[in-house]
Amino acid sequence: MIVLGLDPSLTCTGWGVIRKTGSRLSHIANGQVPTGSKEEMSFRLAALQHAVAEVIRTYRPDVAAAEEVFVNKNPQSTLKLAHARGAVLAACGAAGLAVHEHSAKVVKKSVVGTGGADKNQVQAMLKVLLPGAPIAGSDAADALAVAIAHAHLARTF
Amino acid sequence: MIVLGLDPSLTCTGWGVIRKTGSRLSHIANGQVPTGSKEEMSFRLAALQHAVAEVIRTYRPDVAAAEEVFVNKNPQSTLKLAHARGAVLAACGAAGLAVHEHSAKVVKKSVVGTGGADKNQVQAMLKVLLPGAPIAGSDAADALAVAIAHAHLARTF
Repeated sequence: MIVLGLDPSLTCTGWGVIRKTGSRLSHIANGQVPTGSKEEMSFRLAALQHAVAEVIRTYRPDVAAAEEVFVNKNPQSTLKLAHARGAVLAACGAAGLAVHEHSAKVVKKSVVGTGGADKNQVQAMLKVLLPGAPIAGSDAADALAVAIAHAHLARTF
Repeated sequence: MIVLGLDPSLTCTGWGVIRKTGSRLSHIANGQVPTGSKEEMSFRLAALQHAVAEVIRTYRPDVAAAEEVFVNKNPQSTLKLAHARGAVLAACGAAGLAVHEHSAKVVKKSVVGTGGADKNQVQAMLKVLLPGAPIAGSDAADALAVAIAHAHLARTF
């Protein structure tokens, strides 16, 4: 099973692709899609979507996963995030991919062992779980973490 | 100038296309895209986006407009709306269309003459401004209203 993890954002979307063979995980690729900040929203979303569609065409994942989103203390940021997420999810849907959602707590618990883990702990565990994988940045790391969590949780594949 | 008005929503997205010739407005087409409720989010968003792209291919608007969105009393509904909006805006962006945003108040003021107008007043004015146009439903009416508001406001075209 090839799993695509996604960490959508309007400024920089992370993605990570891993393979699960039995209970073994291996790294395939990861990256980040920066979408500028000066361009008009519709063009930024189109560029983001185009990049995600290209990742899907290249790595042909069987399933995709992303963190759940909630309205947080900054509603305007959440709105922008949800726009980016809508464009990213539509790219997955157009490629026939369902996107499974997992809470941040579940992702951390699955990767580190505790739902209260911080970013540094998650990134340290990525080095253990996917040894030698060069990680493009913190958004790509978040995307790999949600892919790993989904691989752990999806026992039925 | 051909203006595409959009009223994005995850359950039923309205669209309306009008032409502005000098200061005269005329109706070209309008419709609604229902996107079901049982399917997985990514497939619903992909279907919505596909339908909007088809409208753009068919009517070749010069510009698009949509109502601004805010986080309202129901954050979960707003999140769903923003996902739909992201997919719709990305479809516009991929077709080279910028999407101008106008507040609900500005749209009502522009169509009815008062920012506090209700839905019935907006729909009654649509019959006056676009005589004889068959309107597909209340979402299509909202989309036509934002297209009209944009046509009124965009004096520079």
